Amino acid sequence: MSMQYLHPITTDGLRRAGITAPWGFGIADRVRFGELDALGHVNNTAYLRWFENLRLPYLAARHVTDDSPNSPRLVLKRTSCDYMAEMFGGMDYIVTGRTRAFRATSFTMEFGVFLPNHDGPAKQMAAGEAILVLLSPTGDGRYPIPALSRDAFIAEDGALAERA
Amino acid sequence: MSMQYLHPITTDGLRRAGITAPWGFGIADRVRFGELDALGHVNNTAYLRWFENLRLPYLAARHVTDDSPNSPRLVLKRTSCDYMAEMFGGMDYIVTGRTRAFRATSFTMEFGVFLPNHDGPAKQMAAGEAILVLLSPTGDGRYPIPALSRDAFIAEDGALAERA
Amino acid sequence: MSMQYLHPITTDGLRRAGITAPWGFGIADRVRFGELDALGHVNNTAYLRWFENLRLPYLAARHVTDDSPNSPRLVLKRTSCDYMAEMFGGMDYIVTGRTRAFRATSFTMEFGVFLPNHDGPAKQMAAGEAILVLLSPTGDGRYPIPALSRDAFIAEDGALAERA
Amino acid sequence: MSMQYLHPITTDGLRRAGITAPWGFGIADRVRFGELDALGHVNNTAYLRWFENLRLPYLAARHVTDDSPNSPRLVLKRTSCDYMAEMFGGMDYIVTGRTRAFRATSFTMEFGVFLPNHDGPAKQMAAGEAILVLLSPTGDGRYPIPALSRDAFIAEDGALAERA
Repeated sequence: MSMQYLHPITTDGLRRAGITAPWGFGIADRVRFGELDALGHVNNTAYLRWFENLRLPYLAARHVTDDSPNSPRLVLKRTSCDYMAEMFGGMDYIVTGRTRAFRATSFTMEFGVFLPNHDGPAKQMAAGEAILVLLSPTGDGRYPIPALSRDAFIAEDGALAERA
Repeated sequence: MSMQYLHPITTDGLRRAGITAPWGFGIADRVRFGELDALGHVNNTAYLRWFENLRLPYLAARHVTDDSPNSPRLVLKRTSCDYMAEMFGGMDYIVTGRTRAFRATSFTMEFGVFLPNHDGPAKQMAAGEAILVLLSPTGDGRYPIPALSRDAFIAEDGALAERA
Repeated sequence: MSMQYLHPITTDGLRRAGITAPWGFGIADRVRFGELDALGHVNNTAYLRWFENLRLPYLAARHVTDDSPNSPRLVLKRTSCDYMAEMFGGMDYIVTGRTRAFRATSFTMEFGVFLPNHDGPAKQMAAGEAILVLLSPTGDGRYPIPALSRDAFIAEDGALAERA
Repeated sequence: MSMQYLHPITTDGLRRAGITAPWGFGIADRVRFGELDALGHVNNTAYLRWFENLRLPYLAARHVTDDSPNSPRLVLKRTSCDYMAEMFGGMDYIVTGRTRAFRATSFTMEFGVFLPNHDGPAKQMAAGEAILVLLSPTGDGRYPIPALSRDAFIAEDGALAERA
């Protein structure tokens, strides 16, 4: 089995790796030695790094942020992670991310970590969530989620528009 | 103001630093350069490291684990963190931890991160939670929380005994 | 330009990316957000992680270590890194490694970090070295470099056999 | 034995901990769980973090850099570390630093990691070096080491003034 590492994988690629709806955006990577702890498995903090690594290309793909100075500031209000199975050195995994719900200036992402499987359903190893808030580029106030992003959250991720 | 870093601080010390009940166990530390990210503030994953650093002396103090081969294995099922205010390089903080509730073989810890204040209430910067499960030393089954630990959870932390 | 990430690249692939002899083993990867520090560039410690990530597949490819309990223990005696140019978030790089010289139970590896270039010479961003010592699986004495590894060091890396 | 963690220790304190000349600046800290790797000992990259943690208060104490926008930029050109003995979780250590030699715009620091000993010589666990270059605050040229810093390098550290 061959994988395209580090580049965003969209719906078709995820389905071929055994990852079902609603996931439509993922990145394949491999566990590093430095992500293991003294217990010999992936440390609990490494998963949050993976979610962080996914957020950057995801937010660019959904037109939320880019590298320009006019780009809104992104603030993390809350993170959580459920550890569903131990992970070990050298494992190939796909981390997935989508926006589950959004309001005017904030949104809730959810994440998955899967062992890809080309002959059946991928095994889920972890599940995460993050609540993010957009601030103005200068940081002095809330910033509305761009219309293009709201449309993409709904069309690509099946996100729910909540009232604030 | 002088602080005793890295050694557990118990109730009196926490109260002097402006940290109120129910907290009765904390550790003072200082933000490291390596805990900052490219945005110049403490990265979201660093807080989980702080909770991890606190767990080890906390679990020894509550007689849950020690370094012996007969000590139960500790498995993290879930973590979460609420980020309440940005933190920056060189900040002195106290991370606190307590068990909020426990069942036969699992328990829920909660954590706080505070800026100590000797003239008023400490400012809380973050709040976290973790669900932990005890396994037998060989990992082949659940392991009951020791009676001594259950007593300490109740007496020291005001923990709630839940039915499984 | 397309790259095969995370899998070992051998001589032909390196040459196509503008990396010249004596390099014959490399791995392509990408700078992560968590490898940047508060100065906005890759932190000095990240390069040592990259060398570490390369060492594991390299040492397997040269038949020095595998995952078996009879595999010798590897001890790092010394590391160094020259930082030749700043690196930034999202950069694609190839880290290369080879054994430069070996004695009976120890060897010296060198490492490079390059920006791949399909139209000319790759730009070198960093250079590193590490001195490694083999110990017996139980750790109670030096362990001779296997003959197969010595042969591979010479044939694949052009390593120099030094007298102890 | 009681230690003052995280605050700079100067000559008298180091001598009481068994650390001899030429060391005159150190910081006491403790090995964290997250600094251990899957081999159960302190990972090779953690030592470079410790040297980094020491550099910031050291450079302020020697008047090289402060937090002002007029402060020169500091660029790391080279780092190295000799690993002299394995280190493990929970160990209390003192990391020391001094400038060994300096030129017009660059200087060489050396570092030590010691297990403090109040009844004899401290055991040295690691030794490091770093070459640092000062750039102008805007980064567009070399920046001369301030006279105050040169004097402090000589007086406090016994540094050697080299010709460029």
